[in-house]
Order: sequence, then structure tokens, then C-alpha cells
Amino acid sequence: MSTQRTTREWQQADSAHFLHPFTDHAPLAAKGARIIERADNIYIWDSEGHKILDAMSGLWCVNVGYGQTALVEAAAAQMKQLPFYNAFFQTATPPAIELAERLAQVTPPQFQHVFFTCSGSEGNDTVVRMVRHYWASLGQPERQVIIGRNNGYHGSTMAGASLGGMSAMHAQGGLPIPGITHIEQPYWWAHGRPKGLSKDEFGLVAAGWLEAKILEVGPDKVAAFIGEPVQGAGGVIVPPKTYWPEIQRICDKYGILLVSDEVICGFGRTGQWFGCETMGSRPDLMTFAKGVTSGYVPLGGVMVSDKVAKVLIEQGGEFEHGFTYSGHPVAAAVALANIGLIQEQGLVERVREDVGPYLAEQFESLRDHPLIGDVDTCGLMGAMLLVKDKTTGEAFPSELSVGMVCRGHCFGNGLIMRAVGDRMIIAPPLVMTRAQVDELMALIRRCLDLTLVDVANRGWL
Amino acid sequence: MSTQRTTREWQQADSAHFLHPFTDHAPLAAKGARIIERADNIYIWDSEGHKILDAMSGLWCVNVGYGQTALVEAAAAQMKQLPFYNAFFQTATPPAIELAERLAQVTPPQFQHVFFTCSGSEGNDTVVRMVRHYWASLGQPERQVIIGRNNGYHGSTMAGASLGGMSAMHAQGGLPIPGITHIEQPYWWAHGRPKGLSKDEFGLVAAGWLEAKILEVGPDKVAAFIGEPVQGAGGVIVPPKTYWPEIQRICDKYGILLVSDEVICGFGRTGQWFGCETMGSRPDLMTFAKGVTSGYVPLGGVMVSDKVAKVLIEQGGEFEHGFTYSGHPVAAAVALANIGLIQEQGLVERVREDVGPYLAEQFESLRDHPLIGDVDTCGLMGAMLLVKDKTTGEAFPSELSVGMVCRGHCFGNGLIMRAVGDRMIIAPPLVMTRAQVDELMALIRRCLDLTLVDVANRGWL
Repeated sequence: MSTQRTTREWQQADSAHFLHPFTDHAPLAAKGARIIERADNIYIWDSEGHKILDAMSGLWCVNVGYGQTALVEAAAAQMKQLPFYNAFFQTATPPAIELAERLAQVTPPQFQHVFFTCSGSEGNDTVVRMVRHYWASLGQPERQVIIGRNNGYHGSTMAGASLGGMSAMHAQGGLPIPGITHIEQPYWWAHGRPKGLSKDEFGLVAAGWLEAKILEVGPDKVAAFIGEPVQGAGGVIVPPKTYWPEIQRICDKYGILLVSDEVICGFGRTGQWFGCETMGSRPDLMTFAKGVTSGYVPLGGVMVSDKVAKVLIEQGGEFEHGFTYSGHPVAAAVALANIGLIQEQGLVERVREDVGPYLAEQFESLRDHPLIGDVDTCGLMGAMLLVKDKTTGEAFPSELSVGMVCRGHCFGNGLIMRAVGDRMIIAPPLVMTRAQVDELMALIRRCLDLTLVDVANRGWL
Repeated sequence: MSTQRTTREWQQADSAHFLHPFTDHAPLAAKGARIIERADNIYIWDSEGHKILDAMSGLWCVNVGYGQTALVEAAAAQMKQLPFYNAFFQTATPPAIELAERLAQVTPPQFQHVFFTCSGSEGNDTVVRMVRHYWASLGQPERQVIIGRNNGYHGSTMAGASLGGMSAMHAQGGLPIPGITHIEQPYWWAHGRPKGLSKDEFGLVAAGWLEAKILEVGPDKVAAFIGEPVQGAGGVIVPPKTYWPEIQRICDKYGILLVSDEVICGFGRTGQWFGCETMGSRPDLMTFAKGVTSGYVPLGGVMVSDKVAKVLIEQGGEFEHGFTYSGHPVAAAVALANIGLIQEQGLVERVREDVGPYLAEQFESLRDHPLIGDVDTCGLMGAMLLVKDKTTGEAFPSELSVGMVCRGHCFGNGLIMRAVGDRMIIAPPLVMTRAQVDELMALIRRCLDLTLVDVANRGWL
């Protein structure tokens, strides 16, 4: 357990030693970090004693909520018995095997094999080498190119960040690496809400960009397409329902592999076990992390379809790839307990049939707010777009960072809601009740009202 | 806890679902994996009840040995209080801050800051983006090239495997990525034991290859050099004592950053807290993983020297990089307990002054064995080279895989020892006693004798 200190003492030690992810440290040092000390259910508490509704599930991961003792007990029992052993050199441990088996049960039927990693980043990084090795094993080594999407997010390793389409990440460290290219995202607002096209028609147009890119690269040079069923870090961009079936059709037409990045959408988030099931695709590979352990212990991996596994096993020889913690027994034991809990509590069904539809209904009701230009939900993910003029849909100038103003009010009022530009997004724990949705919506409305007052006082309307 | 099954049942489920790291699955399926079920101290037990001395510490990581309840208790207590929270968005958790502070205490004095990852792979991958961002922040964006070494190992992400110099890994998936180049390793035997050069003279020659490479690339294009103090996966290649001080001098001369990959050498393995202290370098960045938690929970990171941190903090703006589990509170709590245990039990000092020198003495005594051409140790790492003719040093033809023959005898006789070509290597837990060294040496001698009989019977001598 950590020693007890004052907030200021924690902040000073933090500034002196801890380089945070995705952070500009000069302003953080001036302001001091918020210190999160404990958590239970869907709430976290900071070092000042504030109770905060965590509508982001930590970072899209604590699907079963905090304080689940079954996961703690599974971790402790496994750690006592066998805290670690590797899966190199023709050895394996029972929890890793059992988790592999369980994953084959809860994933779509084409998946019977798994390659474990520590994180979603390592999972997506693995995909790059694996799909190229797959095609080389089939005698088509020229199939090297992987197509991702602008504003997609696939992690932060060099390869993961290259697959992703975040321009700020590409600007540092020499990205993207070769053999990775991108198409535009299926985001209606970013494309100016094209007149004369319904959202469903737009979905077909956006999927068509994949075909255009395949033809531009050369169909025999393309190895795979990768996408998140719903773009998470990009701002909870829910694609038109026509999009993924058309993507599937195009991948089939050209025989390229389809990779579904389920790091955020997996394990119930969208109201099915995996986002591809909600969106109607049939991926050849599927990356996962986060929800597999609800974040209690790091774990990630790649589900490998029979089509791909057969080639890797029968023709691939040794795949020269892997991680010390590929199949970590403690992480696997926690994942097994976590999946068991999702099943026992029927969380996927609750999201699909009960609390998800209720959240959607509540989000729809936000359309009456003066700042809200649009709302979107999918299962227990939601986004609302803050706009300057809801009748025309005119956006705020991005330099005003209205989303950050709103996020500040959320922090100040006991709510974790994330801002991606002017999209305010949530992905709360799947254990959330209807009463907690009501509590969430009251907080959201309060923070939107406070943001509206700020924006009006600053003359930004 | 996992369900109970027979070995054959585990093996069948394993083959049906689990893609192991660095494995050719067709022969594994035919043979069936060895199932490791429990562990204590320096021993593991398989599903057939065999007790095995684990002279590889899992995979170079279980530094404090198995069954350390202090680590289990730390994990469970933290998991109950706060199983996860992120360090994005200006938040932090007490265990992550406290670990950052503790790492600053146990690492060399130039290190006061840490960037956390999940693994050594992610740590080395982070190094690539970080050193390039550092130089770009200083107005030298043309400094992109990082120099690694052939037969070095820096993990399995695209960038990590590119920094490494494993040709089998480079052959799959389009590696290395651009901007990474390699020099030869400082391995006396691989260079034909050059006549007329002492090992110390050879060390200077080998370090000189770095200077030659810097001049070839162009000094103003080189960002950093990365190396393991002692190459681990490459076969426990202990460099001559002249090597690292000369590498340091060359890095200083050209003003390029020195990165020490301490994933294997860190946390006491070499008889100091970090390998760079044993080998006499003063790195600007230092990656770590494995021993920081003794593998009980995944954790890795990069120690950032004041020189680099100052630029990142004051001139770098936001470093667009990081992982969901950067600073995972449970991993951090386990690391704190692990470091506490290393300190309380004086494990670093034991390795340096007691059990390390005793192991070295015992390894030296192996030189009398007919198969042994050379031995090397550094702290609690050791290697012995199997040769066909010890008077001339002639090697076995590599296609005979004599190392694998020896490894098979080890497995069959209750010893985990790894084969890298014909180098048999060990890195046992640091809690090992002198009596256990004696037990280890008896096992090693038995396995060497059995290997000798095999080799003689097959007419390979």
C-alpha cells in the first residue's frame, strides 16, 4: 500500500518523477495532477475526498466496474500458485490455455486461436507482422500494405501509431512506418454533412474509399484493412449501419484480410460480445485488450481466424514473434474471472436490451440543449457534439477548445467525461444501472449548462 | 483457479487454441506442451508432478523467486482499493507516483524521471519515438538514426525487433523499419577469437565499430546507440570490460544519446542494481521491465535522464505517446513490494559479493568438461559454450543442434537451462543459495555428461 500524503505532496512527487502519457508537463507541473486514490462500482475518489462518476471506465477498460472481489481473489490465488511462467520453449500454463479456450467460446465462430500480448498496442503491432507473415507463407510476400483510417486509433507503438491515423502522433518520431496507408473515416460531420446523401448512403460512399485505395495501391499489394467497429479515441464515431457490411464486401471481393480492432468495442461495450457482431463484419483477425480483464491486470491479444491459423500452423513454420508476458498466468486468471462475471451477470444482454437503449433514449433527449448539435450512442458508448449554432450546425472555432471548457466543468462537478475536440464522449462501466444513468444525465446537463454560461459570457455564441 | 485436467487434456486444449510466442506449432501439436502448474522459490512443478529447478527465472524475470507473499498481498490490497486508473488527462495514482520516486532512488543519479509502459518491448519502442522527439525539440530533426547491434534483443514490436539484431525476426514482417542500423556484437568467439588481440583489446576494437558506423551514417544524423550491458537472448554475451567505457567515450565524443536496455540486466541481475553500473556506462535513457516486478504483473518503462527530461518538459510540448496501462496502479504496487524485498533481503549485494562469485567459481570448474569450450558469468547470469574440440575450439556443425540435445536432457532431468545455438545459458532467481548453486551444478554436470554420451554415440565427436 502507498504511504499517506497530502495532495500537494503527491503532486510534487508526481512532477519530480512521473512522465505521464500524452501530456505536456510544463502546464501540468504548474497546475498539479488530480490524484485518484480509490474506487468502487462506477465511482472514483480523489485525494481531496471528491466522489466522481467515472463515465469513461478508467480508460474504456473497467467494463465490470471497480471493486469486483472475484477478480482480486482470482489474481491472488493464481499469484500464490504460479505468479509467472512463460509460453516459449514448448511450455504452457493452465490459466493461459483455459483463457484461450474461453475466448474461442465467446468470440465469433471463425475464431478458435489466440496470440496473447500485454496490451492493445502490442496486439495491433503483432497484426502487422502476422498478416505479412501470413501472405509470405502463402507465397505472396508482395502483399505488404495495410490500410487504416485517418482519426483511427490502434495504440502507441511505432506500428500501432502508424496503423492509427492521428496526425499529432504521426508528427513525432518518424511515423508512419512504410507499407501503411489510410483512408478517410466514415464521419458524417467531418465530411460537412454532405447534402443529398442520407447517412446510409454516406456509409456506402465512405466504404467505397477503401475500394478506391485498394485500386490505387494495387489489389495484389494489399495485405489487410484495419478499423475499429466504432472509433473510440477518435471521438466515438458511430458509422452508418451500411458501412461495415460494405467494407466486408470489398475485402471479400479483393481477398484481403479484415482486422477488427476490438480493444475498446470488445467484451460487451456495444451490446454484443464484440463490435464486429453489432456492426455486421466477419473479421479474419481481431485485436483485444482493456475489457478482457476490465483493466485490473494488463492483457491483450489477437484472435486468429481458422483461415489464418491454418496457414500459420501448417505452412508458417516458427513465427518469430512474441512477448515475455504472452499468456501471463495471473492476467489470464483475472480475464477468466472477468469473463465469468460478464456471463453470470448477463452484462452483454443488459447493455443490448436494457441500459444501452435507456442511455440512447436519454442521449436523444439532449438534442433540446442549445449547445448540442448531434448525439450518437452505441451500446454503452456515447458522444455529443457541442456546436455554436444548432440550427445551422456551425462549429465553434477549434482554438476556443470549448470541449476542454466542458471537460473542466465535468471534473469540477464530479463527472469524468472526455473531450475529443468538441465531441464530449462517455463509455461507462457496463454494470451501470438505470438510476445511475439518470444520475449521469443530471451531471451532464449541469455541465452543459455551466459550459453554455461560460461560452455566452465569453461572447463565443 | 483453473479447472483440473490431465496433462493430455491440457495439451489438447493448448493445441486447439493457444498460439505460443516464437513457436512452430506443427511439431508442438505432435509432441504436446509441457504444462507448468505451480512454483515456489526457485522451483517449478509440471502437470506430471516433476520438480524442476528453474535456472532461467521464468524468462529472466522472477528475480525474487516464486511464492513471495509480500508481492501477492501488495497486488490484492491495491486491486481492492483501486484496480486501475489512468495517468492521462492530468491525473495520477499514488502507487505510480511512489514507484516513480522509488525508481529515481535506485537508478543511477542522472535519472529522476520515468515513462511507464507494460513491457520491455513497449519500453524500447518508446525509446525510438522519444529520442527522435528529443532531437526535434532541440531543432535537430535530422537526427533520426538509432544504432543497435547484430544479435541484440530489444523486444518484439516492429520498432523493438528493428532495434534488435535477430536475423530470423527481421526476415518476417518487413523489418527493420527505416532509420535503424546495426553494428557487430562484442563477442570474441563469433569473431573467430582473433589472434594477437587480448579480450580487452578486442573490446576496444568492437567499440570502435560504433565510431565507424557513426562516421558512415554521418554524426549529425545519429540520434542514439542502444545496447544491453550483457546481451541476454543473444546468449549471455559478456563483453570485455573495456567495451562499455569506450562506447561511452564515443557517444560523448559525437554527442549522441546512449540507451542501456536493462530489461534483463536490471534489478540486481549483474550484481549492481543496473547493468550499466557493472559495465561502466552512464546512459541517457534506460529501459526496464522483467525484474521490476519479478514478472508477477506486467510492467515496463524508460528511465529518462535529467538531460533528456529537461528538454522534453521545457521544450517538447506534449509527447504524443503513451499506453492505457502506463503507470498501472496494481503493477506499480507490486513493483514497490518487489523493490522493497530486494532491498530488505540485500539481494543485489548477495549477487555481487556472495552467490555471484560462488557461481562464477563453479562455472570456471566446468572448463574441465570435455564438451565445454568456454564459460562466462556476470552476477547471476551464466553461459557455457559446447564445442566439438576444446583444444582447438572447433564448433559443432550448427545443423546438429547440440544445444537442443543438451536442453532436452535438462528438461528430462529437472532443470530449465536455455540453449542459444550451442551456448547453454542460465539466469536463476537472485534468492538462490550456495547450496542451490551446488544442486544446479550437479544437474548441469549430469546433463553435460548425458549430452556427451549422446554426441559420442551419434559419432559427432
